[in-house]
Amino acid sequence: MLKRADEGILDIPKAAGYLDIPEKRLEDLIERRLLVPNKGKYQQLFHFETSVSSIERGSVLYQKGNGKFELIHGFPKIRRAMLLEPAIKKHFINTEILCVEEKMNGYNVRVILFQDKLIALTRGGNVCPYSTEKVNLLLNIDFFRDHPDYVLHGEMVGPENPYVPKDIYGIKSLAFFVFDIRKKNTGKPIPTSRRRQLAEKYGFFQVPLLGEYKIEEATEAIFKHIKELGKIGHEGVVIKDPDMIIPPIKYTCSQSNCSDLLHAFKFYNDVGRDYLFSRVVREGFQSAEWKESEEERRARCLRLGESILNPMIETVLKVQKNEKIFDDVLIRVKNLETLEEFEDYSRMLGLEAIFSKPKKVGDEYLVSIHKINRSTSDKTKAMWNGDLW
Amino acid sequence: MLKRADEGILDIPKAAGYLDIPEKRLEDLIERRLLVPNKGKYQQLFHFETSVSSIERGSVLYQKGNGKFELIHGFPKIRRAMLLEPAIKKHFINTEILCVEEKMNGYNVRVILFQDKLIALTRGGNVCPYSTEKVNLLLNIDFFRDHPDYVLHGEMVGPENPYVPKDIYGIKSLAFFVFDIRKKNTGKPIPTSRRRQLAEKYGFFQVPLLGEYKIEEATEAIFKHIKELGKIGHEGVVIKDPDMIIPPIKYTCSQSNCSDLLHAFKFYNDVGRDYLFSRVVREGFQSAEWKESEEERRARCLRLGESILNPMIETVLKVQKNEKIFDDVLIRVKNLETLEEFEDYSRMLGLEAIFSKPKKVGDEYLVSIHKINRSTSDKTKAMWNGDLW
Repeated sequence: MLKRADEGILDIPKAAGYLDIPEKRLEDLIERRLLVPNKGKYQQLFHFETSVSSIERGSVLYQKGNGKFELIHGFPKIRRAMLLEPAIKKHFINTEILCVEEKMNGYNVRVILFQDKLIALTRGGNVCPYSTEKVNLLLNIDFFRDHPDYVLHGEMVGPENPYVPKDIYGIKSLAFFVFDIRKKNTGKPIPTSRRRQLAEKYGFFQVPLLGEYKIEEATEAIFKHIKELGKIGHEGVVIKDPDMIIPPIKYTCSQSNCSDLLHAFKFYNDVGRDYLFSRVVREGFQSAEWKESEEERRARCLRLGESILNPMIETVLKVQKNEKIFDDVLIRVKNLETLEEFEDYSRMLGLEAIFSKPKKVGDEYLVSIHKINRSTSDKTKAMWNGDLW
Repeated sequence: MLKRADEGILDIPKAAGYLDIPEKRLEDLIERRLLVPNKGKYQQLFHFETSVSSIERGSVLYQKGNGKFELIHGFPKIRRAMLLEPAIKKHFINTEILCVEEKMNGYNVRVILFQDKLIALTRGGNVCPYSTEKVNLLLNIDFFRDHPDYVLHGEMVGPENPYVPKDIYGIKSLAFFVFDIRKKNTGKPIPTSRRRQLAEKYGFFQVPLLGEYKIEEATEAIFKHIKELGKIGHEGVVIKDPDMIIPPIKYTCSQSNCSDLLHAFKFYNDVGRDYLFSRVVREGFQSAEWKESEEERRARCLRLGESILNPMIETVLKVQKNEKIFDDVLIRVKNLETLEEFEDYSRMLGLEAIFSKPKKVGDEYLVSIHKINRSTSDKTKAMWNGDLW
C-alpha cells in the first residue's frame, strides 16, 4: 500500500496485477510522477502523464468501493489525412461504407459515473470542475446507470467555454456533443450506429452525421462538406469505419486552420514552432490535391498570411500603446463552489488569470476570466525598449 | 602529444597553455569531438564545434611551423533588430555616427595565409576547397603577407555558388566582398574606415557602404535603404559603430525574408520549424514599426503566404507526377583537383549530390551539381501513397 500525504492511495500490487505490468514498473511510474493522483476532490483517480504499453497518456485508473479497478483509456489519437483520396484508399482496407461526422471545435471530455455523480475527465486525465458541473446539468445520468461499463466521449462546445470559446454553433452557453462511446478497461469503441441509437435514447446531442458514403464516393463528398463547413467557419470532419474496427482519421478546413493561427498569433511568442509549421503544411497539401486555380491559390495564400501577420501586428501595436495582451472568456456556473474549484484548477494548470466577481443571472453566476499572456507582452515590450531578438 | 590515426596532431599541453584552459578540458573536447581536425588536406587545422568560454563555435586553432599557435576566431553572431528605432537607441550608446553597410546574400568565409597559400574557412571552421581555389584567384596575396596577423572576413557572392547561388548582384561567377578585418588570436575588429582603406589599397571588393549617419537620422535613412534594397531583391543592412567597439546589428528586407522562405519551402519537409517562425515574426514587427496601411499590410500578407505555399504546392504536384525534387547549382573550377576535393568535402558534409562531368570552358571547368532532397521527396511520395501525417 503506497500512500502519499494528502494525495491518493493506490494498492500497488493489486493495481499492477490489474494493469498486467510489474509492480516495480508501477512504483517507478508513481515515483517519477508519471502516474499521479488528481489534485482536488478526486484524489482516488490516478492519471497517466505518459503512455505505458497499450495505455494512452491521459488514461485514468481508480479503485472502486468494491476494491475492483477500472481503467478509463485516454482519447486515442486521431491521425490526419494530408491528401484525402490516397489516405482513404490506404487506410480503410476492406471497408465498404464510411461514416462521415463533423469534427466540432471545442474541447474533449470523457464522462463517467463516479460515486453517484458524473465527472468530466479532460484529455490529460484531470477532472475539470467546470466541465463536471456542466455534464451533471446536461446529461441524463440514467445512461451511466444503465451502462456502467461505458465511457461517453464528447466535445464541449459553445461560447461559455474557458478553453476554446466558439460562437459558431448557435449554442447559448455550452453543450455536450457525443462523438464516441467506448468500453471501460479495454477502451474499445462501439459501432457508430449503436452509439447513435443509444445517444438518441438518452437524449444526448451528437456531432452531426454528414453522411455515409461508399468508399469510392467518399472523397468527393467529403471535399464538398469541407468546403461548406469552411464557409461557415466550422472545423472539419472525422471519417469512421462504421464498425469502429479501423481507427478514424480526420481532415480539416483551411478556414479553421487559419482561424487557429489567427487566434494563436495574437500571442505570437507562445506559438509552438510545430503548431505553425503543421498548419502551413496542411494548406499546401490541400491546395495541391484540390488542383486550385491561380486565383484560388492566391486567396489561400492571402488568407494564410493574414491569419499569421494581422493578429501579430495588432499585438505589437497594442503593446506600443502600453495596452495589455489578454483573452477574456466567460463561464457560467450554478454553484459558487464550482467556481472556487475551477480557480484552483486553473492555477494548478499554470494559467495566469484574473476571475471577475460572479454576477448573478437567474439561478446561475456569470464570471469573466481575464487570461494574461505574459510571455508575448514581455517579449514585445522588450523589443519596443530596444532589445535585440 | 595526442595523435589520431590519419588525423591532425595537437600538442595538448602547449595548446591548453595558449588557450588558457585546463589540459583536461582540452582533452575532453577532443575526446568528445568538439575540437576536431579538418578532413582532407589541412589536418593541422582544428576547429571548434561548440563555443568554449570566449572562443566561438567555428574558431580554428593550429600550430605554425615555428611551434607557435594561432587562433582564428569564428564569425561573431550579429544580432538582429526587430524594431529598428528602439534597437538603435538602446544598442549604440555613446555612438554619434553609424556606418550602414549592405548585408549581401552569399556565404561567409574567413581567409588566411597558410603555408604560403590562401585558405578559406567556412562559418563552421572547415576549409572549403572550392572557396579556397576562388580566394587564391580573386585576392591579392600581398595583403596577407603584409599583415600576417589579420584575418579577412568576406561574403562569397554570385551565381556560381554551391551554397547560396544568387543572380542579383551582376556578378558573372563568384566574387569576394570584404566586410570585416579582424585580428588573429583576439578576434578584435579594426575600425571600418581603416578596413576600407586597406581593402581599397589591395584592390578588394567590399560590401557597399550605404552611408554614415548621425544616430538620430539613422533609422529613417535605413528604412529608405531597406525599401530600395527590397525592391531589387537584396538582403538588408548591417549597422556598425565605425570604431567597431560596439558589435554590429543587422536588419533585413521583407522581400529577402520571403525569398528565403520561397526557396526553403520547395523542400518543405526540411524547413526548420524555427526557420519559418523567425521569418514570420520579423514580418510582423516590420509592418508594425512601419505603420503600414491596410493595403501595404495586405500585400505583405500575400507575399508571405505565397512564399510559403507556392513552392510547397509545386513540390507536392511534382511528386504526384513522379518528378524529382532537387536543386541544381553550378560551380566553375580551374583545377580538377579542386573538384575532386570539393566532391569529397560535400560528401563529408552529408550532402547528397550528383556532380556532372566537368565541361571545359576556356581554361576552366564548369560543373553542375544536382542536389537531391530525399526527405521532402520521400515524405511527399508517402502522402500520395496514402500515408497519414
